[in-house]
Amino acid sequence: MGTGLYRCGKKFLWSDEQPFTILSTRCICGGWVRSVRSQKNNLFLHVSDGSSLEPLQVVASADLNTRGLTFGCAVDITGSLEKSPSQRQTVELQAHHIKVVGECNPVDFPFKIKGHHSLEYIRQFPHLRCRTNTFSSLLRIRSEATAAVHSYFRDNGFVQIHTPVITSNDCEGAGNLFQVEPAGSDDIADKDDHFFSVPSYLTVSAQLHLEVMAGAFPAVYSFGPAFRAENSQSRRHLAEFYMVEAEICFTDSLKDVMKLMEDVFKSSTAHLLSNCAEDVWLFHKSISPGHQDKVDSMLKRTFNVISYTEAIDILNRSAQPFTFSPKWGCDLQTEHEKFLVKHCGNVPVFVTDYPYDLKPFYTRDNQDHPRHTVAALDLLVPGVGELCGGSLREERLDLLKARLARAGLESSYAWYLQLRQFGSVPHGGFGLGFERYLQCVLGVDNIKDTIPFARFSRSCLL
Amino acid sequence: MGTGLYRCGKKFLWSDEQPFTILSTRCICGGWVRSVRSQKNNLFLHVSDGSSLEPLQVVASADLNTRGLTFGCAVDITGSLEKSPSQRQTVELQAHHIKVVGECNPVDFPFKIKGHHSLEYIRQFPHLRCRTNTFSSLLRIRSEATAAVHSYFRDNGFVQIHTPVITSNDCEGAGNLFQVEPAGSDDIADKDDHFFSVPSYLTVSAQLHLEVMAGAFPAVYSFGPAFRAENSQSRRHLAEFYMVEAEICFTDSLKDVMKLMEDVFKSSTAHLLSNCAEDVWLFHKSISPGHQDKVDSMLKRTFNVISYTEAIDILNRSAQPFTFSPKWGCDLQTEHEKFLVKHCGNVPVFVTDYPYDLKPFYTRDNQDHPRHTVAALDLLVPGVGELCGGSLREERLDLLKARLARAGLESSYAWYLQLRQFGSVPHGGFGLGFERYLQCVLGVDNIKDTIPFARFSRSCLL
Repeated sequence: MGTGLYRCGKKFLWSDEQPFTILSTRCICGGWVRSVRSQKNNLFLHVSDGSSLEPLQVVASADLNTRGLTFGCAVDITGSLEKSPSQRQTVELQAHHIKVVGECNPVDFPFKIKGHHSLEYIRQFPHLRCRTNTFSSLLRIRSEATAAVHSYFRDNGFVQIHTPVITSNDCEGAGNLFQVEPAGSDDIADKDDHFFSVPSYLTVSAQLHLEVMAGAFPAVYSFGPAFRAENSQSRRHLAEFYMVEAEICFTDSLKDVMKLMEDVFKSSTAHLLSNCAEDVWLFHKSISPGHQDKVDSMLKRTFNVISYTEAIDILNRSAQPFTFSPKWGCDLQTEHEKFLVKHCGNVPVFVTDYPYDLKPFYTRDNQDHPRHTVAALDLLVPGVGELCGGSLREERLDLLKARLARAGLESSYAWYLQLRQFGSVPHGGFGLGFERYLQCVLGVDNIKDTIPFARFSRSCLL
Repeated sequence: MGTGLYRCGKKFLWSDEQPFTILSTRCICGGWVRSVRSQKNNLFLHVSDGSSLEPLQVVASADLNTRGLTFGCAVDITGSLEKSPSQRQTVELQAHHIKVVGECNPVDFPFKIKGHHSLEYIRQFPHLRCRTNTFSSLLRIRSEATAAVHSYFRDNGFVQIHTPVITSNDCEGAGNLFQVEPAGSDDIADKDDHFFSVPSYLTVSAQLHLEVMAGAFPAVYSFGPAFRAENSQSRRHLAEFYMVEAEICFTDSLKDVMKLMEDVFKSSTAHLLSNCAEDVWLFHKSISPGHQDKVDSMLKRTFNVISYTEAIDILNRSAQPFTFSPKWGCDLQTEHEKFLVKHCGNVPVFVTDYPYDLKPFYTRDNQDHPRHTVAALDLLVPGVGELCGGSLREERLDLLKARLARAGLESSYAWYLQLRQFGSVPHGGFGLGFERYLQCVLGVDNIKDTIPFARFSRSCLL
């Protein structure tokens, strides 16, 4: 361990890469006290400034102890950074002066010095939970995973697009939309006086907006919030969650989309494991023992590919009793997804070429028969189930027009049809649920523990 | 020029860094035709794949010309990449085969091959405007500027926080909030049956949520959408816009906040000018001639700092007739901001220490008199006016409690008070309007031309 970077005099003065260059410098460290221990004439503190899981060991003369120096308080410490005599850390701060800048009453503070607080318990305190080891690790991991995703796309020539949160697309009249109007307006249902002149909703996906951009760029992506007004308390759903979405042009094969999905997953995960090892280790040790092997195996092995039709056959041939019996033309249920992942050796599996009638108007028609399918796929992963969905998009004007007309959507999607009228190209893409990705890599059971501020039915704290 | 990266066989095979290594390779290029010119036995095309402003020159035998090969159509071209005999480009593609994959009827297509389309004109086609040179340059610049901001914060040890879009904070009952409820619910005004149990709004700022995180991390930032339900058609306002926001801990001086703001601005801009030179050049040449000098001067010179009190003195001493006469205790008007920037030699200027009564409850009390001020500041920049706002935050429990109590907000902000109760630290931060930043650097007059999909009163296209 000991990979910490401590802010001393507002600069990062020490790291594993240049371990001893600044020893004995006059050093100022601001942070929060994690433990206080008195021993003979000495005072030992563990202080964290949030930059790493491992705290800084501070050694001081016992007479620097003061009343407010308790677990959770904020301190400013001046001293010199020395090579530590102990095996447990590389360096320690010999304190010359300790100032308590913010006290923390141990009785009122919901976290206790020796307490092993469950994720459920700390979830009750969204404004304070970042002060626990587990959640501060999660936040560093999330930040690093975000950077990993951005650098993957950047390194591969994708243009990042800030797709809109507010949209007038109602996505085929899909349910579970949030509607938006100025606060205090009584007229949200009054069709004639909307703020934007038309009803407006929170986006459920950036896809259609990315497809606009796929008319001018070879590869685009977005990474931002998406919304579902689902009345769910499930451990896999949030009302506000983050999606990574990408579109690539001049492709006519689902293989390109699958390769991209597998690359994003593996490259981001490898980056995370090497850049955030200590924090990920905390999860693999305390939260989900044994999970590290599962992640290693996902990274080493090639993801499986089976068609939806094969999946139904596998399910039907299995001895397992399902609550919903698998049937061609029906959606896969969670129990089916779980079985398929297990059947594939607990390695992620792409299920491709779903029935035409199960997928939205924009998915590309395979024009096969008698079992009519589209070039759509889902990526199922161990523990989580569906992590990504993707497809080739219907780029052929005549087929798209006919399908929209049958659904009575031709006029709402006139602009979308125009994309196919002026320089249309074969293209495809996918969306990945970022919180589910973190669940999958860290082995976190409840999605609410992977996001800084969880929003779900009946709960919007802060 | 000629910094283009062309997608050949789905890889980036050519760049200025390795210019001739893959010449004569069999090469497949997908893109959109920008011009078609027949000359004797030869056909000359300019093809863009969106990866750069400069198109790829394609040379073919005239018999490869086909009916659909017109401005705007999408093509797949096979050929070999050769050193170009012309001075105008380094390489050209000698085409062996040209396939029109998506036609583009020149009569119906709103952009014409020789047309000089104004930003106002192309703004009418949000689904197609990325196919123009100007807007595709803007989108590449925006993507690169986004990456620059992220790398600044990452390089300086900041943790990125995905702050929520939906919040139950009503920010002191501020006006101009968007409210959120499931679509189709008639009960948005019915206080007892909200989806989240409480009224919920679209965030106006990530600040309070970042302050939560500033209780455990030395430095945090966010980069995401913010919202105002302002009934404005101004060239400086959007209903949905992006903000870069940051908080730093263990600081008790506005100077630290100002240094951070100036660093973010200068470092991101320098990165942008060097990584996106060709695209930025298009703006500085065609959209805002002379603007490059202004940007260079902003980068070279140290930003000015004046107090609000000094600003009022400067305004009162000036000979300029103002519509609103400057008065201590009143907000600065746009005309005042413009004058101050000009007065400071068209270099950005920080105005600090505003009157106590002008700023929100969280700003740190300077406890001065008789003119009672707070440690808040705005950054004013040429052409745009207010680009950033920031402050030290009131970290002292007693002062914050008293101020909230006077405003009748003590119970709504009980959680915020708790941040000051358990290990409070002096901290401060700022927010920067990302679209205004792009306006400032590129010299774009209307903010609607800096965002992929503009949302404003009466308009939410797509």
